[in-house]
Amino acid sequence: MKPAIVMQSDFGIDSGLVACMHGICKMIDPQLETYDITHQIPAFQIREASYCLQYTVPCWPSGTVFVSVVDPGVGTSRRASVAKLKNGSYVVTPDNGTLTFLHDMIGVEEIREIDEKTNRYQKTKNVSVFHGRDLFAYCAAKLAAGKITYEEVGPEYPVEEIILHELHHAEVTTGDVKAMIQGYDPFGSAEVSVRNEEFVQAGFQLGERLRVSVSDAKRVILDKEILYERSFGYVPKGEDVLFQDLALFVTIASNEANFKEKYGLCEEQQYKVRIRRTNK
Amino acid sequence: MKPAIVMQSDFGIDSGLVACMHGICKMIDPQLETYDITHQIPAFQIREASYCLQYTVPCWPSGTVFVSVVDPGVGTSRRASVAKLKNGSYVVTPDNGTLTFLHDMIGVEEIREIDEKTNRYQKTKNVSVFHGRDLFAYCAAKLAAGKITYEEVGPEYPVEEIILHELHHAEVTTGDVKAMIQGYDPFGSAEVSVRNEEFVQAGFQLGERLRVSVSDAKRVILDKEILYERSFGYVPKGEDVLFQDLALFVTIASNEANFKEKYGLCEEQQYKVRIRRTNK
Amino acid sequence: MKPAIVMQSDFGIDSGLVACMHGICKMIDPQLETYDITHQIPAFQIREASYCLQYTVPCWPSGTVFVSVVDPGVGTSRRASVAKLKNGSYVVTPDNGTLTFLHDMIGVEEIREIDEKTNRYQKTKNVSVFHGRDLFAYCAAKLAAGKITYEEVGPEYPVEEIILHELHHAEVTTGDVKAMIQGYDPFGSAEVSVRNEEFVQAGFQLGERLRVSVSDAKRVILDKEILYERSFGYVPKGEDVLFQDLALFVTIASNEANFKEKYGLCEEQQYKVRIRRTNK
Repeated sequence: MKPAIVMQSDFGIDSGLVACMHGICKMIDPQLETYDITHQIPAFQIREASYCLQYTVPCWPSGTVFVSVVDPGVGTSRRASVAKLKNGSYVVTPDNGTLTFLHDMIGVEEIREIDEKTNRYQKTKNVSVFHGRDLFAYCAAKLAAGKITYEEVGPEYPVEEIILHELHHAEVTTGDVKAMIQGYDPFGSAEVSVRNEEFVQAGFQLGERLRVSVSDAKRVILDKEILYERSFGYVPKGEDVLFQDLALFVTIASNEANFKEKYGLCEEQQYKVRIRRTNK
Repeated sequence: MKPAIVMQSDFGIDSGLVACMHGICKMIDPQLETYDITHQIPAFQIREASYCLQYTVPCWPSGTVFVSVVDPGVGTSRRASVAKLKNGSYVVTPDNGTLTFLHDMIGVEEIREIDEKTNRYQKTKNVSVFHGRDLFAYCAAKLAAGKITYEEVGPEYPVEEIILHELHHAEVTTGDVKAMIQGYDPFGSAEVSVRNEEFVQAGFQLGERLRVSVSDAKRVILDKEILYERSFGYVPKGEDVLFQDLALFVTIASNEANFKEKYGLCEEQQYKVRIRRTNK
Repeated sequence: MKPAIVMQSDFGIDSGLVACMHGICKMIDPQLETYDITHQIPAFQIREASYCLQYTVPCWPSGTVFVSVVDPGVGTSRRASVAKLKNGSYVVTPDNGTLTFLHDMIGVEEIREIDEKTNRYQKTKNVSVFHGRDLFAYCAAKLAAGKITYEEVGPEYPVEEIILHELHHAEVTTGDVKAMIQGYDPFGSAEVSVRNEEFVQAGFQLGERLRVSVSDAKRVILDKEILYERSFGYVPKGEDVLFQDLALFVTIASNEANFKEKYGLCEEQQYKVRIRRTNK
C-alpha cells in the first residue's frame, strides 16, 4: 500500500484548483490515494497552515506525504522543499514558515530542495503561477508512488536554514505555568502556549481549581479560579474551564459562551497567562 | 473489499478536524476508504443530521459504516453507540437523536454502546473534546477494517432506549393526506411529512391537480389547486407544483421562485397541510 | 485499475446530495474511486461549469469519467449525454452548454444520449428531481466500472448538434493579439480570450514590455506598457503584469491588488483587449 497524499492550501473550494492537484497525482500513479485537510486557510496565512498541520500530521500513518501550499511568493524565489519529519512522514511545501510548529512539536529530520529540472511537471512549464499542482503535488506524487527516493527529491540543506516563525514557549515548573495566549478557536476559546503534556508535567490534576491570570502590558484582565477538567461540559453554562484541547495545547473556554468576547480580548493584543496552584 | 466509512458532522471545513478523523481511520487500516457527507450541519442541529442521514444512507451499499457527529454533549454523559440498521449498514454516533429518521424509515435492528476501554484511541486519552476522532471514527474504523466484530463494539441495549426526537406522521387515506410542513430546502420549497411511497399509496396520479391547503392554528394560508408532477420544470415560472423529492418526502415548490417567502411561512411556526382529490 | 469518477455541480456542500452521487457509484462497484472538482458552481451557471472543466480535465489521466451537473432543466427535455473527448476522457452531463470550452480546447470525438431505460437508477424512478444521482452519476459509474461499453450508453448523435455557448476567439498575428476580457478570477485579475499557446505563437518573449489597451464601445480604459512575465511576483506591488495562467488563458493582474477594481471594469460590460509589441 502506497502512502496517502494529504493536501491543504488557501485556494478555496469554489474552483478546479484543488482537483487539478489531485488529478496530477493520479496522472503519476492512479493507485495513489489523495485526501484533503482544508483549502480554506485564510489567504497567505502561513502561521495558520503551520498550526493546522501540527495537530493533523500525528493523526495519519507514518510515511504519509503532506502537501501544504500557502505561498505568497509563488513564481519568485523561496525554496520549494520536502521535509522528512522525525515521525517518518513528509511535508512538501514552500519553505516559508510552514514547518514552524512541526519542527517544534515533532522535529524535522532532514530537508531537501525540490530539483525543478527533474521533479516539476514539464507539460505546464510555461505556467509559473500554480506550483501547488506543477511542483508540490507533482513531486509529492512521485515520492509517494516510489518513482523517486527521498534523496532524489533534490539537494539536502541544513535543517538550521529552515524558515521558522517566532513561537512562544511556556515556562513550566511544578504547579506553575507562565505562557501566552497564542490564538482563538472559532468559538472564542483561548489557546494557551502550553502543550497538553507540559501541563501534565506541571502536576495539575483533573478536577483541581487553578488560579488563572490573564494580563496585557498595562493591566490584569482576569485573575480568578478556573476548574481544570476534561471538557467544557463539566462546568455550568457561561462558566470558564481549562482543558487539554485536541490541537495539543491547553485551552481556556466558557461553556456555550465566547471566552474572548466575554473578557474583551482582541487578536492584535498580546496577553500573558499564568496558571498556578491556588496555594502558590 | 472493506466497507467504506462515510462521515458527517458540524465541524465545518476550515480546520484540520475532519482530516484528523480520516487519518485515524487510515491509521487503523490504510486500505479503508473514507468519504464525507457534509461537515456543514448547523452547530448542534441533531435533527438536521438525522434528516440528512435518512436520504443518504440508502444511496450507499449495505454494510457501509456511517459516522455522524453532532454532539453538544461531548465529554459528558450520553451513550456513544453503533446502530446496526435493517438494511445492513451501521451508524456510529452519539445516541442523542441522530437515529430518529433512520429508525422510522429504515429501522434499527440492534444497538450497542461503544466500550471506551477497548474501542477508544488511547494515545489521546487525556483529550476529551474530540470524540469524533478518538471514539467515533476510531471505533468505526475498527469495525470497517474487521478488527472487531459488531458484537465487540460493546454491550447491546434495547432498541426501545434509543433517543428519538418527535416526528410527525401523515394520515393517509385514498385521495386524502393530512400532514405537516416538516422543513424547507435552501430554495424555500416546503417539505411535507408524507413519504413519497405513502403519496403513491393515496392513489394520486402524476398530472393530477390536487387541492392543497396550508394552515396555522389561526388561519388558512392557502387553499388552491396545485399540479402533482415529476418536477418543478412541469409548471410555468412562479407557479406552484407538488412532486416526490429526492429526500424521500413530498415537496411543494414554486418553479424558480421561493414558496416559503411567497406565502410568508416561517421556520418557527407549525403548519398543517391537507392534500386531496378535488372531488373530496 | 478502473478510471476515477470526478464530479462537479452547483449543489453546494451543506447537504447529502453530493454524498448520494458518490454512494450510487459505490453501489455499482465498490472499487470505483470518486473525487470532486467543486460543488460550489454558482446556481445554473453553465458557462462557469464549462470553464472549470476545460482546465481541470487535462490534469487527470486519459479515460477519467467526469460528471458535471449544472442543470436548470432537470426533469424536463434536454439531452442527458456522455461525450467522449479527443484525449480519451469522458464527460457525463446534460447537453446544455457544458461542453462549450472542452469542445473548443480538446475536442469532442463522439457524443451519445443516455438511454434512460437501461442506464437510469430504477429504484428511485418516481423521483425526477435528482438526475445528478439517478442518471448522471449512475451512468458514469456503469461506464467507469466496465458494466457497459461507451456504445451501450445510448444512441450516438452528431457532434454538430452539441449545445455550445458563444466563445470569443482571439485574432493572433506576429507581435499583435486582438481579444476580449472573458472573465475575472476571485482576485480581480482579468482573463483574456487568448490561449497561453497562442500567445507564444505571437512571438512574445518573457521579460518584454508589451503595449496593452483595453476599451469598451465608447472609450479607451487603459493604454500602457505592461510587463509580460512568469507571474505577478515579478513586478512591484500594485503594478500590472501579463502572464500565462493556470486556467490556460493569458491573464492581466495587478500584484497584490485588484486589476478589475483599479480600472473600474464591470462584469456586464464587454471589453476589447489589444496586446502588441511597442514598435507596432
